[in-house]
Amino acid sequence: MTTDALHPDLAAGQRGPADHAIRQQIIDAADAHFARFGYGKTTVADLAKAVGFSKAYIYKFFESKQAIGEAICAQCLEKIMSAATAAVYEARTPTEKFRKLFSTITAKSTELLFQEKLLYDLAANSATEQWPSALGYLARVEASLREIILQGREAGEFERKTPIDETSSAIMLAMQPFMHPLLLEFNLDGLPENQTRVINLILRSLAP
Amino acid sequence: MTTDALHPDLAAGQRGPADHAIRQQIIDAADAHFARFGYGKTTVADLAKAVGFSKAYIYKFFESKQAIGEAICAQCLEKIMSAATAAVYEARTPTEKFRKLFSTITAKSTELLFQEKLLYDLAANSATEQWPSALGYLARVEASLREIILQGREAGEFERKTPIDETSSAIMLAMQPFMHPLLLEFNLDGLPENQTRVINLILRSLAP
Repeated sequence: MTTDALHPDLAAGQRGPADHAIRQQIIDAADAHFARFGYGKTTVADLAKAVGFSKAYIYKFFESKQAIGEAICAQCLEKIMSAATAAVYEARTPTEKFRKLFSTITAKSTELLFQEKLLYDLAANSATEQWPSALGYLARVEASLREIILQGREAGEFERKTPIDETSSAIMLAMQPFMHPLLLEFNLDGLPENQTRVINLILRSLAP
Repeated sequence: MTTDALHPDLAAGQRGPADHAIRQQIIDAADAHFARFGYGKTTVADLAKAVGFSKAYIYKFFESKQAIGEAICAQCLEKIMSAATAAVYEARTPTEKFRKLFSTITAKSTELLFQEKLLYDLAANSATEQWPSALGYLARVEASLREIILQGREAGEFERKTPIDETSSAIMLAMQPFMHPLLLEFNLDGLPENQTRVINLILRSLAP
């Protein structure tokens, strides 16, 4: 995982001065435009028109529509991760931190993805095509999860026999129905009860 | 769950005499046609042409393209379920039966869905739009799972404290990445190792 994947201002396919105010202006305008008209249907020419810059000027900052999508996606994932990190920090025990990590991710993802319905296809693209922003985000969630598991093992709350890699990757997979945009959409009706059931199952699997 | 959802010859949207040989002929021809040209792009008119019957004659047996899709889907799910049931029957212990149920479902689904790449959009439609055939199939998988859990509890292999409904629904959700066509496609690369990891996690959660 490189920092490229974590910071919107350095995301893949971007160019020109990183801190240029115009860059953020383009991202914000594109965000609003995608939210209104959808990511799939918008071209860079449409965007240029909406933002009030020339296509050539936009290409000074982003090499493609996907690069702009990446930047929006990275900002969105950053919001989700920040909320989760704050919730984990507030929780007292490793068990409670584990619950908060995944329940916050799902609650925040639901809020961001489905309030702005048309950004959903952007998120789905990012996840299924494994954009660097999505991969970087998943790596950060798994890193946070590993830290919680290690704390739980240290505190005697969790079992220590299973290799940590096996434990953390299995949990990331079992949580996919509540993290991956394609399945999250499909599982919205049963929230939060169904996620709590899977979290409880995982906590039973972690029992010493 | 009604039998309508379980038997292809009674699936939703079908009409006319159930055992009519023409019905199966239409299903087989549609299956071959969808596998070659894709479900999404095919119209009932295209199908009629390919099968050599009139559109009106096809409508005697199926009320829509979806009804034909349903019938194909039900047949495909029936094959998966039969393979899983046979594998569960062969296994000796509840733990082994549990492993076999899900590993067979995933292996067979992968084989059926991705050998005939263009049937994949049919399966994805069926799952995301919750067609009766897909719902009936999931109900059968869960019924088989419950039976295995009860046997495991009886035999002292599995814990008995968690309500059976909670246990079985949580397991069905945690297994979604390896059962739902949308996520199965996304998780193909890590098979079978990643599924084994989640199965191991669930078995740890079932420990008495």
